[in-house]
Amino acid sequence: MSIGVFDSGVGGLTVFKSIADRFKTVDIYYVGDTARVPYGNKSRDTIVKYSLELTEFLVKSFAVDLVVVACNTASSYALDFLKNRYNIPIIGVVEPGCIAAINATKNGKIGVIGTQATINSNSYANTLSALTGGGVRVYQKGCPLLVPLVEEGKIEHPVTKIILKEYLDGIVSEGIDTLILGCTHYPVLKDVINSIYPELNLVDSSVAIIDYIHKLNLDLNEKGLRNLFVTDESVSFENLKKLIIGDIPTFKVNLDSIELK
Amino acid sequence: MSIGVFDSGVGGLTVFKSIADRFKTVDIYYVGDTARVPYGNKSRDTIVKYSLELTEFLVKSFAVDLVVVACNTASSYALDFLKNRYNIPIIGVVEPGCIAAINATKNGKIGVIGTQATINSNSYANTLSALTGGGVRVYQKGCPLLVPLVEEGKIEHPVTKIILKEYLDGIVSEGIDTLILGCTHYPVLKDVINSIYPELNLVDSSVAIIDYIHKLNLDLNEKGLRNLFVTDESVSFENLKKLIIGDIPTFKVNLDSIELK
Repeated sequence: MSIGVFDSGVGGLTVFKSIADRFKTVDIYYVGDTARVPYGNKSRDTIVKYSLELTEFLVKSFAVDLVVVACNTASSYALDFLKNRYNIPIIGVVEPGCIAAINATKNGKIGVIGTQATINSNSYANTLSALTGGGVRVYQKGCPLLVPLVEEGKIEHPVTKIILKEYLDGIVSEGIDTLILGCTHYPVLKDVINSIYPELNLVDSSVAIIDYIHKLNLDLNEKGLRNLFVTDESVSFENLKKLIIGDIPTFKVNLDSIELK
Repeated sequence: MSIGVFDSGVGGLTVFKSIADRFKTVDIYYVGDTARVPYGNKSRDTIVKYSLELTEFLVKSFAVDLVVVACNTASSYALDFLKNRYNIPIIGVVEPGCIAAINATKNGKIGVIGTQATINSNSYANTLSALTGGGVRVYQKGCPLLVPLVEEGKIEHPVTKIILKEYLDGIVSEGIDTLILGCTHYPVLKDVINSIYPELNLVDSSVAIIDYIHKLNLDLNEKGLRNLFVTDESVSFENLKKLIIGDIPTFKVNLDSIELK
């Protein structure tokens, strides 16, 4: 069988890497919508349309048996729509992240950081509440500058620490013991966040999603193909690809060929 | 007559404001491509296609008599293409900025900052060289984090100063006396840049472009209409619009209706 993974751009490569490392023999097709990145500041209708186009591309072109929505914004806005439309499993990053956070927290106080769109959607807060019957307290914070900082490679940079403290001090002072990294770019910042807040459990959805795939009991024996597609050539995609997964070739898919009218 | 102005997003509003302040009676139509912003990390072909679609929208829908490409990336990649295609004047921000810089410099050393795509295009360096027969020295620096910082409203923030110094110290130490703000977001940072480098002449293309329009001797008497369009609803567009020009309503134009196949 084969797994399709999509993201608005490069961040989902952290999810691609987790799946590729764990399921060596499965075929994986990744598409990053670099022509239309970022999704974080776009409207719900637009995010749903783009997510549908990427899913159609993966299903029609490669007959994938499972689609991973490796983008928190798309998971937050388009997952239910996609689940209703397809007969194959569609997995987002929100629910796996929430389950991992619920398992990790001791005091029931969970922080969530993400793009402004992810936070505005309340998807993490709603899912955490639904899974626990309101048994946890959730503290959310939109962190719009973290993606550009990661994409500029400013990981261990003083500016990134200043911005992280500005974003996080407020919710950390509320007493959270667990923080969901609600954006697929953020795992790259794990060490920096840990150096500032060593007491926090950090939840990385790209890891949490592996358990989810396991439970589907799919036949994972295949050729171990790894194929990356982008909707536009992008230097920052190539740079972060090298940082996250190394040298796999990237193919360009023309936006015209995937747009649905 | 009427003037059309387009940009990849919100930055071109600094140009809109300059034109609106100076030409009170002209009709102005602005379109910001918020559904596909940013252009700075997209390929040449994509930038040309999007620029053509926005120009067609302005020409077809409002019969504008002049188009201002208020986006440095689009000016750098698509201006010649558009000039060849249309019979009306098409004005970019690059040449006016270069002329203003040549007039301002005393020592012939000019700095240029912009998005990575603008800098990679060499459009400012080539234009400065062509206009002076190689008589000036040009020092360029891509500043990819400045747009996200401006869009997050971090204008007077310590982080912005650290990043500005990181970007600018190198070219300032080369002895430039004039700096072209080669991105329509950057005029918002004028005061901060001046506070760090009070000796620099800062060239703001949104001001330089006014002279250009004057020289066209167009009939500027009209109703003074001001209309703003975006290709996607955007909170950051609304926030920066308020900061830059105040309360003018924004209309959404559907991307489907402007895309050219």
